[in-house]
Amino acid sequence: MRSIVLDGKSVAQQLEVSQKAKAQQIFEQSGIRPSLATILVGNDPSSAIYVQMKVNACHRVGLGSKKVVLPQSTTTDELKKVIRALNADPSVCGILLQHPVPDQIDEQACFDEISLENDVDGVTCHGFGRMSLGRNAYGSATPTGIMKLLKAYEIQLEGLNAVVVGRSSILGKPMSQMLLSENATVTTCHSRTKNLEEIIRNADLVVGAVGKPNFIKDSWIKDGAIVIDAGYHPPGIGDIQIESLKNRSLAYTPVPGGVGPMTIASLIDQTIDSALNRLMK
Amino acid sequence: MRSIVLDGKSVAQQLEVSQKAKAQQIFEQSGIRPSLATILVGNDPSSAIYVQMKVNACHRVGLGSKKVVLPQSTTTDELKKVIRALNADPSVCGILLQHPVPDQIDEQACFDEISLENDVDGVTCHGFGRMSLGRNAYGSATPTGIMKLLKAYEIQLEGLNAVVVGRSSILGKPMSQMLLSENATVTTCHSRTKNLEEIIRNADLVVGAVGKPNFIKDSWIKDGAIVIDAGYHPPGIGDIQIESLKNRSLAYTPVPGGVGPMTIASLIDQTIDSALNRLMK
Repeated sequence: MRSIVLDGKSVAQQLEVSQKAKAQQIFEQSGIRPSLATILVGNDPSSAIYVQMKVNACHRVGLGSKKVVLPQSTTTDELKKVIRALNADPSVCGILLQHPVPDQIDEQACFDEISLENDVDGVTCHGFGRMSLGRNAYGSATPTGIMKLLKAYEIQLEGLNAVVVGRSSILGKPMSQMLLSENATVTTCHSRTKNLEEIIRNADLVVGAVGKPNFIKDSWIKDGAIVIDAGYHPPGIGDIQIESLKNRSLAYTPVPGGVGPMTIASLIDQTIDSALNRLMK
Repeated sequence: MRSIVLDGKSVAQQLEVSQKAKAQQIFEQSGIRPSLATILVGNDPSSAIYVQMKVNACHRVGLGSKKVVLPQSTTTDELKKVIRALNADPSVCGILLQHPVPDQIDEQACFDEISLENDVDGVTCHGFGRMSLGRNAYGSATPTGIMKLLKAYEIQLEGLNAVVVGRSSILGKPMSQMLLSENATVTTCHSRTKNLEEIIRNADLVVGAVGKPNFIKDSWIKDGAIVIDAGYHPPGIGDIQIESLKNRSLAYTPVPGGVGPMTIASLIDQTIDSALNRLMK
C-alpha cells in the first residue's frame, strides 16, 4: 500500500495564494494593511524563530506585523497590560502571544486577556468554549491547521475511532473537540492513561500531541490508520515513530512539513478573517 | 458481588446541611438572603416541575428565589433582555434558564447572555472553556453533581477508561472534560459512533447521557464497572438497562434518586458559592 503523504507545506502554499488575494482586497477596499501583533517574552531561541516565521508569513501575504519583545523577567500583570494596549490598538487585528512564556507568568491568564476578536491564535478559554460548543470562534491554530489538512485531502472523519495523545489547552484538548465536531468517536489519552498501546491499536486515526520524541511506537498503530504528528523535535523527529507507517498507513504527516506549516497557515487565515470581520462592522 | 448504590438522594441531603449553614452565615453577616433567579419559557409541564424542584431546594436551605415565567412565543432577543436585567439585579446571585427552551429561541445564545458570575448552572460557553482548561468556573450542574457523587463514595478515577455516551453542551461534553481533569482516559461517543457496544465493553466507567430510555444494554457493560445514568424517562427508567448490573457492577446510580438530586445540589452549592464570592468582594 502506498500511504498518502499529508503535505502541509504544499497545502499551506496553496492557501497563501488566496490569503494574498484577500489581504490585497482588504487593502484596496479600506486603505488599511491589517497587522498581526506578536509578543515574545524572554530569550528562548526556538520561540524567537517561531515568531519570526509567523511574521514572515504575514509579510509574504501582505499583512503588517507589530512585534513586541519583553524581557525574561516580565510579570503577569505587565504582560496583561501590554495585551490590553494591543486590544485597544485599531491597527491590530490579531494577537499572537508566543508559547511558552517564562515560568513566573500565568500563561492562561495572559492568553485570556486577549479579546475574543483578537484571539486569532485560538488560545482563550472563551474561544475554546465557543469552538467546543459549536459557536463561532477562532480555533487553536495547530489543531485548526490539522483539520484544514485533513479536509484538503478529503479525509472523512465521521465514525472513525480517533485517539488524541495529549491534553494541553492549545493542542490536545481543542484537537479532541474538533474531531468530535466532525463526528469522530474521540478518546483523549495522557500521562495517566494506563493502556495506551492497547487504545492506540484500535485507532483509525492517531494524533501525537504529547511533546516527546518518538513516544508513540509505529508497532502500536494498525495498518490503514491515519497518522497525525503534531510534535517537532530537532532535527526533525515527531512524537510518533513513523518509519514502518510510511507504507502501511492510509495517510501520515511528515515531520517537518506536515503539521507545522498548517499551524502558521491557520494563524494567517484567522488574522485575515478577523480583518474582514472588522471591515464588515 | 454486592454493588455499591450511589445514593444521590442521601448525598444531596447531607450536602443540604452544610448549604443551610452557609446560607444562614451569609444572612447573618450581610443581612442579605441571596436569590436564585429562575426563568421558565413556555408550557412544558416537566420543565415547570424541574423549576419548582429547584425553587423548593433554594427555600429549604434558606436562599431566596425569583421566578420569571415567559410565554411560549418569547423571542431570543426578549429572553436576552430579561437575562441582562437579572444580571444587573444585585439581589440575584445566580440565574437558571430552564432547558429546553422553545424551538424559535437560540438557546446557547441566551445561555451565553448570563454573566460568568451568575452562571451557577454552568451553561455558558465561557464557563465551559474555563472549566475545561482548569480555570475557576462553575461547572454544568449535572456533570458537576456526578463528580460530587463519585467523590462522596471515594471512587478513584485516575487511569480508568471512562466512556461518555452523549455529547450535549450541558451534559456529555462537560462530563468528558471533568473526567479528563480527574485523569481518566475519556472516550466520548455519540449517534455517529460505529462500534458503541465494543467501546462500552472496555469501559471501567460508563456514563449514559444520551436521553433515550434503556439505550445502553446491561449486557454490553463488563463486571466491576462503574455505571452512571444521567437519563430520566418517566416513570423511572434511565439511559442504561440496569437490571443485571445491580449485583455485578462496582457501583451504579439508581434512577430516580441517583444523578437527579445531585444536579439540584450542585446548582444550590454553586449559588451559595456565588453569594460568598460577592460578599468577599
